[in-house]
Amino acid sequence: MTQKVAYLGPAGTFTEAAAIKYAPDSELLALTTTRGVVNAVMNREADEGVVPIENSLEGSVTDTLDLLIHDSSLNIANEVVIPIEHCLLVQSDTEMLDIEVIYSHPQALGQCRQYLNQYFPNAVPVSALSTAAAAEQLEQSQTGAAAIGTLRAAELYGLKVLARGIQDNSSNVTRFVVLADTDHVPTGNDKTSLCFAFEEDKPGILHHVLGIFANRGINLLKVESRPTKQSLGRYIFLLDLKGHREDTAIVEALEILSPQVSMLKIFGSYPQYVEDSND
Amino acid sequence: MTQKVAYLGPAGTFTEAAAIKYAPDSELLALTTTRGVVNAVMNREADEGVVPIENSLEGSVTDTLDLLIHDSSLNIANEVVIPIEHCLLVQSDTEMLDIEVIYSHPQALGQCRQYLNQYFPNAVPVSALSTAAAAEQLEQSQTGAAAIGTLRAAELYGLKVLARGIQDNSSNVTRFVVLADTDHVPTGNDKTSLCFAFEEDKPGILHHVLGIFANRGINLLKVESRPTKQSLGRYIFLLDLKGHREDTAIVEALEILSPQVSMLKIFGSYPQYVEDSND
Repeated sequence: MTQKVAYLGPAGTFTEAAAIKYAPDSELLALTTTRGVVNAVMNREADEGVVPIENSLEGSVTDTLDLLIHDSSLNIANEVVIPIEHCLLVQSDTEMLDIEVIYSHPQALGQCRQYLNQYFPNAVPVSALSTAAAAEQLEQSQTGAAAIGTLRAAELYGLKVLARGIQDNSSNVTRFVVLADTDHVPTGNDKTSLCFAFEEDKPGILHHVLGIFANRGINLLKVESRPTKQSLGRYIFLLDLKGHREDTAIVEALEILSPQVSMLKIFGSYPQYVEDSND
Repeated sequence: MTQKVAYLGPAGTFTEAAAIKYAPDSELLALTTTRGVVNAVMNREADEGVVPIENSLEGSVTDTLDLLIHDSSLNIANEVVIPIEHCLLVQSDTEMLDIEVIYSHPQALGQCRQYLNQYFPNAVPVSALSTAAAAEQLEQSQTGAAAIGTLRAAELYGLKVLARGIQDNSSNVTRFVVLADTDHVPTGNDKTSLCFAFEEDKPGILHHVLGIFANRGINLLKVESRPTKQSLGRYIFLLDLKGHREDTAIVEALEILSPQVSMLKIFGSYPQYVEDSND
């Protein structure tokens, strides 16, 4: 049976590119929200789900973090990193000088800010739900409009590519996670993602917790905080650790951590992404 | 001379409410971007600027953090906290049953998700640049549209308030910072905000840095990480500490920290916000 992979669609987004890179031979299922992707995997309409979690310029995708923390029982089973190349797309009869409105996802507009300021200082940026939705909006718009999107979106929506690689920063990559019922077996080059919160905010408590890992030589790859949503100034901390949750040092650290926190959720252990020679 | 305070406008947003609360007798200057507010203060068109930095449900306003880190020489001179009360606004001839489209800022739409699902499961949410811009859009729209915005926006744009306090979570507050040329003198109840980065990502280094503060009894109010924008997995850390940068313990901690980091920027020390009895 072909493996089914749900992703945050529509087709033509970078998440579709990540899903194809992760599982080139699987059947892909485009869903409109991250919540929808999680539900599809939880209801077994899909075996796995691919959602964006972090961009090298914009930072974490907080919707995904909050869903993992509060509303999902899925594990992180893998990760994929995709370089982001933004293109300026128009209808076939539109030229540079005609452009008065530019559609895209707010993150994409933000990532091309210098380019837009330089070449289109008077064009109005308009936010769309995704880069692909922006490309789709062009179909309905009068001339004078452009979209920032992928080469794939140009192909899917029959658009002309006026410029490629218009992002301000060439080190623009996005990390995606693969969500599934179970995480990944140890491979020798793994990461473990988890989150925790404290009952009370005692001075030095985060320092103490990081010490539980540091003292065992466990390297911290990422620290992030998200609001508990209960009151301002109370946080949930998310850590990415180097190693697998079955490694002795991590097993021991988590045993010590567990009674000291009011909440501990282990999202899973999975192979750390290694760059392709093609990237 | 009247004090001039720039803020992220337009009028009718929660940022305007924060600016009025902070400086009720000053002349207010509405600007369309956070960058514009920073520039107005740097060019001395305004004495101070008010911008949102953190919401208790959605987390940090990353645009503001990145501007403070990368593109501003201003200090944080104060903070203001405002409770967020969202209202459902319509033109005078629109009733509940007519509503097919709901305009608002994406954060506001997100914060009223349960209310919208319950009462308007079929209405289409449309994003606007601000809650006030959403209210303004109602003026141009046919009946059948509503906006989520403030009571003040209803007043400014002559709209009818169909419902008040429609946010899903009652503990919804936003924290704003006041930016100025200099920070605040010590008051005895202060906070210090700063950021730093490491040349190399050595195991245990964040734990070590937090120890510099913890070992001196300096309480950590907030830890946040933002991408360096140079490569995935490299971060700038932002800390809010309890105390003033002129306090002996903090002076000492910063002297020890400084040679160990590749970048250290102290945004400033300012009085910690104390809730009004009116809030």
